Amino acid sequence: MSDTTVDYHPMWTELGLDLVAHDMLLTAIPQMYADAYLSQQDRPAGMAYFDFVLSEIHGLRIKELQDHKAAGGTVIGTFCLYVPEEIIRALGGLSVGLCAGAEWAYDQVEQVLPRNTCALIKSAMGFKMGKVCPYVESADLVVGETTCDGKKKAYELFGELAPVYVMELPQMKRAADLELWRGELDRFVAKLEEVTGRRLTFEALQQATKEVNDKRRALQRLNAARVASPAPISGKDALLAVQVAFYDDVPRFTQMVNKIADELEARIAAGQGVAPADAPRVLITGSPMSIPNWKVHDLVEKAGGVVVSEELCTGARYYEQLVAEDATTLEDLLDDIAEKYLDINCACFTPNPGRIEDVLRLAREHKADGILHYALQFCAPYQIEATTVERAARDAGLPLLRVDTDYSMEDVGQLATRIEAFLEMLEA
Amino acid sequence: MSDTTVDYHPMWTELGLDLVAHDMLLTAIPQMYADAYLSQQDRPAGMAYFDFVLSEIHGLRIKELQDHKAAGGTVIGTFCLYVPEEIIRALGGLSVGLCAGAEWAYDQVEQVLPRNTCALIKSAMGFKMGKVCPYVESADLVVGETTCDGKKKAYELFGELAPVYVMELPQMKRAADLELWRGELDRFVAKLEEVTGRRLTFEALQQATKEVNDKRRALQRLNAARVASPAPISGKDALLAVQVAFYDDVPRFTQMVNKIADELEARIAAGQGVAPADAPRVLITGSPMSIPNWKVHDLVEKAGGVVVSEELCTGARYYEQLVAEDATTLEDLLDDIAEKYLDINCACFTPNPGRIEDVLRLAREHKADGILHYALQFCAPYQIEATTVERAARDAGLPLLRVDTDYSMEDVGQLATRIEAFLEMLEA
Repeated sequence: MSDTTVDYHPMWTELGLDLVAHDMLLTAIPQMYADAYLSQQDRPAGMAYFDFVLSEIHGLRIKELQDHKAAGGTVIGTFCLYVPEEIIRALGGLSVGLCAGAEWAYDQVEQVLPRNTCALIKSAMGFKMGKVCPYVESADLVVGETTCDGKKKAYELFGELAPVYVMELPQMKRAADLELWRGELDRFVAKLEEVTGRRLTFEALQQATKEVNDKRRALQRLNAARVASPAPISGKDALLAVQVAFYDDVPRFTQMVNKIADELEARIAAGQGVAPADAPRVLITGSPMSIPNWKVHDLVEKAGGVVVSEELCTGARYYEQLVAEDATTLEDLLDDIAEKYLDINCACFTPNPGRIEDVLRLAREHKADGILHYALQFCAPYQIEATTVERAARDAGLPLLRVDTDYSMEDVGQLATRIEAFLEMLEA
Repeated sequence: MSDTTVDYHPMWTELGLDLVAHDMLLTAIPQMYADAYLSQQDRPAGMAYFDFVLSEIHGLRIKELQDHKAAGGTVIGTFCLYVPEEIIRALGGLSVGLCAGAEWAYDQVEQVLPRNTCALIKSAMGFKMGKVCPYVESADLVVGETTCDGKKKAYELFGELAPVYVMELPQMKRAADLELWRGELDRFVAKLEEVTGRRLTFEALQQATKEVNDKRRALQRLNAARVASPAPISGKDALLAVQVAFYDDVPRFTQMVNKIADELEARIAAGQGVAPADAPRVLITGSPMSIPNWKVHDLVEKAGGVVVSEELCTGARYYEQLVAEDATTLEDLLDDIAEKYLDINCACFTPNPGRIEDVLRLAREHKADGILHYALQFCAPYQIEATTVERAARDAGLPLLRVDTDYSMEDVGQLATRIEAFLEMLEA
């Protein structure tokens, strides 16, 4: 897939990557992608864009970031959807997710982090320590947050390797918490103004808000199509769209996703799908999934199921809430941004009844036959909240399968067996 | 040790304890206590008080709590030193720690909490689910806090079994955080006023502040004596004093600890100690230790070392900070309480340089030859911060041993070997 006429090695050298290790990574990921994605039947034609993006994820997109920086822009690395992209964009920054999603340089990572740290954090640290993530190497600033113990404390160590700024997300959603969070936005603006050398204006923030909302609206459209039966797009492809949303150029991404949504709506009208109408429909909820972590979706769909929605940070949590667009002053718009982000239902909040409602609502809307609760090992917030989700699912008459896993492939055989049994139960 | 003339079974029945299981527990703990404590040589005579307290910890003290309730008072269960005892006391409440510190009813616990939850949380949940903790059964309210992911999310499930109120401790120590925390105190006062049916007055809070400060001052005196060589008291005994501080009657405890401090000061004047002057001196830092978790202290001291200070919640973090006593209004006094508590250096804060300073200062003051970093498995804040502590210790020329463990006795042999080797290194 890769455009072999361009050699990005000089750019990667410039960024300080470990070229030998990075070449190994760039051999592994396309194989994983081919196995999970290119093997699918009847994919929407528009997914060709994502095939291209994936093939160029460390190439052309990094080149674009370098060009943006050369033109006076900045690149801001983030690791969580609570970091407001609107503000970064309005100050001439491009927001990019940091690499994670695969085991990398764990031998180095485990010298600074305990073994019992979740795979997402170990992976992000490993991509940095192993010097194979061109995104973090391009970043003028990495913005962390206090969403879990692991990330909160790991950012202290990450900060020794890259410029890190941490936003404090409160742990409840009362008026006092919104006030703290609103203040965090002011402090974030001040920090970004310092890093970018620019001044935040209402007009720029309004424009950025519109663009980022448009991205979310496009994803909403794509995902609304997944209500249909037969499902017009695989869960894997829908997951990929949100994963790429963290990295890609915003207006281009929006356009491409809307194109896919057009295609899906035509498919629905024609009664076409990627899976038989009677394929068991599964909602997946839990910990985030970074590229190339497609493990559980892949197992479900290779076993004959179809994933119809994700109540994940790389799913509905990413695109469901929009920032209100009717503010007329900068302060009001920042208030709206604060409210929108605090509205997301991460398990880091206590209590977190909104997530339970979201799970049940999405299951109902997308006609899920069952729920797969996915948690990364050692991700305490999601692992503990799984008990509450499980009870709510039971009360709603929805079968639920709990999967606690990591990025290794060691448990794939056992997981496949459990998932197959679960799908059989859903069919019965 | 127990006063066998009193049969507390009717009281325990009244509290709803599982009498059979509870009798088993009351057989096990005195054995552990005898092995760890009564086997010691040259203990201060004043420790007889603690022998008595331990023998009556589910008896006489619980009877006192019931009498207090019968007289119109309340009992407030807490689980963390961030919950301000002054406020509870000023509203006629007795603050008691909840049971933890031993593996109990894990089979039930692991049906609601993931296996990879730290022992402290599993244990507290197990004592509740197994109905063997008369403190939690006596509590009119259990007050939790958001100090770690595990507790934060486990309180949601604990709240199904007991009345729980959660205070939000912020995750940083900036002005905005102090503001949130100060607001939490107001909300806590309102909640306790509702539960106790009383109204908080300046006079009562001033009085309670003085009493709780006196308790801390007594512990400061006791622990200041541990600067001496030879050590006049074992680390185990000093740890026990702080563990009991969470449960005991405040003025009585203060008086008894001051009596021990008198004795220690006389010992120092006479050059007497509990360990040879050349015994390796160890500072222990890390996760909290609840009764009957004496495992690591016991291993260090049975191997010939002496623990000279604890940078723990059941240690210096508990008694080092005092609330200012010069406020003249209720609001000012609450400000002072907010400041004092936010000054404690728990690993839940990011960044947390104060803890590193405390560790190095305590090691210096108490002439420690080495540091033992103790973390509960799956206690991410302390396990991750251990890396920072380890580096600071190395830079200060202090050997550091990392121990990550739980409440089981399975690793005792291996730990003993590691600790013996560490002490030998300190002696060399």
